[in-house]
Amino acid sequence: MNKNRLEAFSDGVFAIVITLLILDIRLPQVEYSELAGALRELIPNIVSYVVSFAVIGLYWIGHHYYMRHMQKINGIFIWLNMAYLLAVSFIPFPTTLLGEYPFEKIPVIFYGANLLIVNIISLIMLRYVYKHKELATEGYTIDLLRRFFKLFLKVNIGYVLAVILAFFAPVVSYGLYILGLIFGIYLYARRED
Amino acid sequence: MNKNRLEAFSDGVFAIVITLLILDIRLPQVEYSELAGALRELIPNIVSYVVSFAVIGLYWIGHHYYMRHMQKINGIFIWLNMAYLLAVSFIPFPTTLLGEYPFEKIPVIFYGANLLIVNIISLIMLRYVYKHKELATEGYTIDLLRRFFKLFLKVNIGYVLAVILAFFAPVVSYGLYILGLIFGIYLYARRED
Amino acid sequence: MNKNRLEAFSDGVFAIVITLLILDIRLPQVEYSELAGALRELIPNIVSYVVSFAVIGLYWIGHHYYMRHMQKINGIFIWLNMAYLLAVSFIPFPTTLLGEYPFEKIPVIFYGANLLIVNIISLIMLRYVYKHKELATEGYTIDLLRRFFKLFLKVNIGYVLAVILAFFAPVVSYGLYILGLIFGIYLYARRED
Amino acid sequence: MNKNRLEAFSDGVFAIVITLLILDIRLPQVEYSELAGALRELIPNIVSYVVSFAVIGLYWIGHHYYMRHMQKINGIFIWLNMAYLLAVSFIPFPTTLLGEYPFEKIPVIFYGANLLIVNIISLIMLRYVYKHKELATEGYTIDLLRRFFKLFLKVNIGYVLAVILAFFAPVVSYGLYILGLIFGIYLYARRED
Repeated sequence: MNKNRLEAFSDGVFAIVITLLILDIRLPQVEYSELAGALRELIPNIVSYVVSFAVIGLYWIGHHYYMRHMQKINGIFIWLNMAYLLAVSFIPFPTTLLGEYPFEKIPVIFYGANLLIVNIISLIMLRYVYKHKELATEGYTIDLLRRFFKLFLKVNIGYVLAVILAFFAPVVSYGLYILGLIFGIYLYARRED
Repeated sequence: MNKNRLEAFSDGVFAIVITLLILDIRLPQVEYSELAGALRELIPNIVSYVVSFAVIGLYWIGHHYYMRHMQKINGIFIWLNMAYLLAVSFIPFPTTLLGEYPFEKIPVIFYGANLLIVNIISLIMLRYVYKHKELATEGYTIDLLRRFFKLFLKVNIGYVLAVILAFFAPVVSYGLYILGLIFGIYLYARRED
Repeated sequence: MNKNRLEAFSDGVFAIVITLLILDIRLPQVEYSELAGALRELIPNIVSYVVSFAVIGLYWIGHHYYMRHMQKINGIFIWLNMAYLLAVSFIPFPTTLLGEYPFEKIPVIFYGANLLIVNIISLIMLRYVYKHKELATEGYTIDLLRRFFKLFLKVNIGYVLAVILAFFAPVVSYGLYILGLIFGIYLYARRED
Repeated sequence: MNKNRLEAFSDGVFAIVITLLILDIRLPQVEYSELAGALRELIPNIVSYVVSFAVIGLYWIGHHYYMRHMQKINGIFIWLNMAYLLAVSFIPFPTTLLGEYPFEKIPVIFYGANLLIVNIISLIMLRYVYKHKELATEGYTIDLLRRFFKLFLKVNIGYVLAVILAFFAPVVSYGLYILGLIFGIYLYARRED
C-alpha cells in the first residue's frame, strides 16, 4: 500500500473525530428562562471539548511528523496504525464522560487510560520501525529515534503517574493532563519545519 | 509540515462541520396528524441551518484565499490554524441554540460571540504572517495585507456592535449577522480568480 | 480558487452526507422479545435510507461528469456550487421523514421538493456555465449543453409532476422517484468513460 | 471517471463510517454513584465497536489492494462500488444491535448477513472485472483472480455457515466472526507491499 493513501486515510479519521466532538455538547430541552443556567452547566463539557480538540490536534501533528520518517509501509505497520486510529477514535467517549462528571475519579482515570493507550501504541510503532529500518527514510537515525523514544517514554510515565494519582486526587490529574497537553503544544509550536 | 497537508486537513474539518449541521434538525416524535405543525416549528432551525451553512462556506472560501498567500508554515501557524478550526467546529452548537430559541437574547449573543472569535483568530493569523514574512509568498505585499486587515477589522467592529446590540434588540442583531454574511458572499462572488 | 480544491471539498461533503444517513436508523429501546417487531417497523426507514444513498451517489457521479467540463471557476460558480451542496446536505432530513411516515403526503412532497431544488440548482449552474463559456473546456459544445439541458429539464418536469401527484397519491409519487432514480443509475451505468 | 477520484471518495466513506461507530456508544444518564455499573453494561457495546472497527479497516485495506489491479473504471463498476459502499456504510446499525443484545440470535444473524452482503458484492465486482479485462492492469492475471476468488469464496462459505449456526448457537457464531476477522488481519499483515 502506498504511504500517501495511509496518510490520507489517517488524516480523514483525525479530521472526523476532532469535528464529531461537538456532537456531544447537547443542548438540554429547557424553557428559555432556564437557558442561562443550563448553559452554565455545560461549561465542563465545553472545557473537555476544548481539551480533546487540542489533544487530537496534537496527535494529528505528531502523526504527520512521524510519517515523514517513513519511506514505505508494510502490512504490520498498517495494522499498528489502525490500532492507533482505533484508540484515537475512542476519545469522544471519555470526553463526554469527563464533561458529564467533571473532577470525578472514574472519568479522569478513563480519560487518562485512553490517552495512555494511544501513547503506548505510538511507542510500539516507533519500536517497530526501528526494528525494520528498511521502512524508514535515511534521516531516521538512531539518535532521532532515541530522542523520540525518550520523549514518548517521559510522556507515558507522566500519564501513568497522573492516572494513578486520579484514584486519590482526580482534579490534580485533570490538571496534569492539561499541563502535558500544553507542553506538547509548546514542543510542536517551536518547530520551524 | 507541508502546507498542502494542513490545507487538506482544514478542508476536511470544514466539509464535516458544514455537513454535520443537518443532524441538529431533529424530527420530533409526533403523530402524522401533528406533523405539519411540528415541521412549521422547525422553520427557525432550518433558517439557522442555512445561515450557518453559508457562514462556514464563507470561512472555507476565505481560508482558501488566505492560504494561497502562504509559502510555508511553521509550528505556531499550525496551532493558530488549529484554534481557528476549533472555533469553526463549535458553530453547530450556537446554531442549534439559535434554532431552538430564535430571536432571544442569549442565542443571538452566543452566536455572534462565536463568529467574533473566529474573526479575531483570523486577524491574529493575518498579523502573524505579516510579522513573519518568510512564511508568505512574494505577492503578499503590505498593500494586500492592509486591505485584508481593514476588511477584517471592519467586519469585527460590525460583529462587536451587533453582539452589543443583541442585549437590547436581538432580532436586529440577527438581521445584521445575515447582512454581514450577504456582504461577505457578495465580496467573494465578485472574484474572478 | 483551484477547480481541484472545489471538487475535493464537494466530494468530502458528498461522502459525509451519504455516510451520515445511517445515523437516522435508530434502534428503539425495547426488550429482546420485542426486537423482531421493532426491526420490522424499521423497514420503511431502511428503504428510504437505500433510496437516498443511491440518490446522493447519483448526484455525486453527475457532479463529477459536470466538473469535467469546467476549465476554471469563479466566485459566482463557487457559490452556486455551495447552494447545490446545501440542498444535497439537507437530504437526510426528508429521508428520515419518509422513513418515519412512509407513503404519507407530507414526507413524499417534502422529499420530492428537496430533489427538485437540487435539480433546479443544477440547471442554473448549467446555464451559468453556458453564459460564461470561458469557464468551460473546449469539449463543452452547444450540442453537449443542449443534451444536458434537455435531460435535466425532463427530469425536473418529472419531479414537478411527481410532487404534484403526491397531493393525491403519495405512494405513486414515491414509486416515480424510485423509477427516476433507476433511470438515472441506468444512464450513468452505460457510460464507458 | 478517474479511478483516483472513485478511490478518494471510497476512502472518505470508509474513514467516516469507521469514525462514526463511536457515536453509538452512548453514555446513559445516571447518577455518578451508578456510573461504574453503567460503564460495565457498555462492555458489549465496546466489544462490538472494536470488532466493527477492525472489520471496516479490513475492508478498507482489501479495497485498496483490489483497486490497485484496476486500470480504468466504467459506469457499471462505479455502481457496483456504490452498492459495496452502501453495504459497508450500513455496518454501524448491526454493530449497535450486537452491542445492545450481545449473544442473542437476531443481532448475530443480522450482523453476519451484513458482512455476507459486503463479501458477495466483492465477489460480483471481482467477477465483473474478470469478464471485462480491459478494466484491469496487466498484472491482474487469471491466476491472481483464481486465488482471490477462492479466498473470497471460502470466506463467504464460512460466513454462510456462521449465519446458519447463529440460529442455534449465536455465541459460537459471534466467535467465528471474530476468528474470520483475525484470519483476515493476519493475511494482510503478512504483506510486504
